Amino acid sequence: MSERVYNFSAGPAVMPITVLEKIQEHMLCLPGVGASIMEISHRSEAFKEILASAQSNLRSLLAIPDDYEVLFIQGGSRLQFSMIPMNLLSPEQPSADYLITGAWGKHSLNEANKHGDMKTVWSGQDTNFDRLPSSGDSGGKWRPTPNAAYLHYTSNETIQGVQFKDVPDTGDTPLVCDMSSDFLHRPVDVSKYGLIYACAQKNAGPAGVTVVIVRKDLIADVSEDLPGYLRYQNHAAADSMMNTPPTFGIYVLKLITDWLQEDIGGLAKMHELNGAQAKLLYDVLDANSEFYEGHAQPECRSLMNVTFRLPSKELTQKFLAEAASKELKSLAGHRSVGGIRASIYNAMPTSGVECLRDFMEDFCKQNS
Amino acid sequence: MSERVYNFSAGPAVMPITVLEKIQEHMLCLPGVGASIMEISHRSEAFKEILASAQSNLRSLLAIPDDYEVLFIQGGSRLQFSMIPMNLLSPEQPSADYLITGAWGKHSLNEANKHGDMKTVWSGQDTNFDRLPSSGDSGGKWRPTPNAAYLHYTSNETIQGVQFKDVPDTGDTPLVCDMSSDFLHRPVDVSKYGLIYACAQKNAGPAGVTVVIVRKDLIADVSEDLPGYLRYQNHAAADSMMNTPPTFGIYVLKLITDWLQEDIGGLAKMHELNGAQAKLLYDVLDANSEFYEGHAQPECRSLMNVTFRLPSKELTQKFLAEAASKELKSLAGHRSVGGIRASIYNAMPTSGVECLRDFMEDFCKQNS
Repeated sequence: MSERVYNFSAGPAVMPITVLEKIQEHMLCLPGVGASIMEISHRSEAFKEILASAQSNLRSLLAIPDDYEVLFIQGGSRLQFSMIPMNLLSPEQPSADYLITGAWGKHSLNEANKHGDMKTVWSGQDTNFDRLPSSGDSGGKWRPTPNAAYLHYTSNETIQGVQFKDVPDTGDTPLVCDMSSDFLHRPVDVSKYGLIYACAQKNAGPAGVTVVIVRKDLIADVSEDLPGYLRYQNHAAADSMMNTPPTFGIYVLKLITDWLQEDIGGLAKMHELNGAQAKLLYDVLDANSEFYEGHAQPECRSLMNVTFRLPSKELTQKFLAEAASKELKSLAGHRSVGGIRASIYNAMPTSGVECLRDFMEDFCKQNS
Repeated sequence: MSERVYNFSAGPAVMPITVLEKIQEHMLCLPGVGASIMEISHRSEAFKEILASAQSNLRSLLAIPDDYEVLFIQGGSRLQFSMIPMNLLSPEQPSADYLITGAWGKHSLNEANKHGDMKTVWSGQDTNFDRLPSSGDSGGKWRPTPNAAYLHYTSNETIQGVQFKDVPDTGDTPLVCDMSSDFLHRPVDVSKYGLIYACAQKNAGPAGVTVVIVRKDLIADVSEDLPGYLRYQNHAAADSMMNTPPTFGIYVLKLITDWLQEDIGGLAKMHELNGAQAKLLYDVLDANSEFYEGHAQPECRSLMNVTFRLPSKELTQKFLAEAASKELKSLAGHRSVGGIRASIYNAMPTSGVECLRDFMEDFCKQNS
């Protein structure tokens, strides 16, 4: 086996090595089953137990109240961008509010606009999404539109590296959150939300499974005329098995949530660890602010995606090349932000962050 | 590692053991990458090569002409049931024809009817889907509706075990085929089709990736108002990466199509092998027709799913229990057909079929 590198990919992203080892061990034969997880019926007892266990792990980690469904759906966040307006808008409430804090918020708004005239109640576009509303003084205020069907926001913008620390207050308007890139990295008060969704490929599993946590009353009476796969209630009624679910992905999600509970000790612990790791990198930015320019305003900094620029394109290329030679990989920033993005999701070992921190300090010294 | 059983699951289903071993070997480190296939960006060179290789394997195995797209989409056949009418119907052609030869055809029709008034041009419902149209004399004839946008049929009905041997002739009407349960088990003249789709979890990979092969002209001018994920052209324009695709599933599909090309020697060889294996079981039914009652009319018998009933419910239970004790698993028929269903997809080793054949002969002798 070749050596594993430190993988700062923004997603699909690093996974706990103990989880990968378990998948490897049981690849040919799930214990007691005599076949691979990929080979067994989704209706088998063995798989039903895995699905139930994935759900109950999520319920326990996030203290999800009983009046919420926990669904596993295919199609990524992209399909959620459509399903949310298709299920939650109604003739009485034909519009919804959107907070646009980065690239993913924009995508979700564009899809929703196919189904009604959405209201952008706040946008960070003018400052290239380096800040958030109501976070300290930088962002400015917003107010909900009366009679909005819901308010949608993105808790962590992967590309820009801005992350909400608090939950926006919408009064009675259901809050809908794209939590794809910071799901399961901190405790969440689910009761404040109408719907939370997260594609798995950051903190929860492989690409191809999306977790949807939704308040039951919001989806109960949605029209049966919707395309069947796009109607949440169909998934809820069939316990996420209206058709063959992505069985392998759900299995991996189950193992990762086991790891969060048993090895990490829950989401409060996970959050502490993530905070400490992110601090290692942000401290380098702050101590060398003549050289490294952080993209996010300090009060909005993401604990998942650390984004910063170097003084020149040449230095950025040099940084990436030298980092890669030290097995620090997938650090290039998105073209819309430039520079460097270090994604340090749950499974990134502290040794990887320390290694990057040391490299950043050395690189700064040698190139200032 | 516990022992592998012979797994006759209808899907997700048995996979080639050499493929499982390769996945296992590279689970922690894809060669030259230093990370698991699940951990790397879909935009990485390593994954783009895997995706391109999966596509070119399919193009080569099925001799897919250049004017067809090869797409990988999430959501299973169930999402295709909606996407097909949403993309292929138009104000000028607001209806399509459906051949209903089993459970899956019915599901696809029900979804399509949400988008227009589909025509059922043939149905096998009256004989519990034991036969097909125009196959020998048993099925009866059908004729296409003038101006139908397409004709949809299911080449192999997994639950009933009936399989088309020929391609229905629709003249100029585009032919749309749900090939989920017999995809990649025989050569196909793709040029006869407008669109072929197949969820992977029978012959092509794990659950969570669906292959769509579609003639480019049919999808080029579809309205951009469709939900983004449901518009084929969006997937085509982004080469199946309009969002993060199910990277692991595509990787496994690549390995399985490698196996089909390199180990099996292509689809003509695969079809020969499948024919020989199915014959082992159908010969037992024919030689013991007082005891075993095949569900499908002989001329429609599936090479993938062998369906039959025993003289009583008690004997069926006894058959299942004794088979299981010999490590012959997942043989229960679907409740709508009853009895036994032996799914013998591409990766089922001949030894497994021989073992089942021997068991069926013994069981018949001892219980007649």
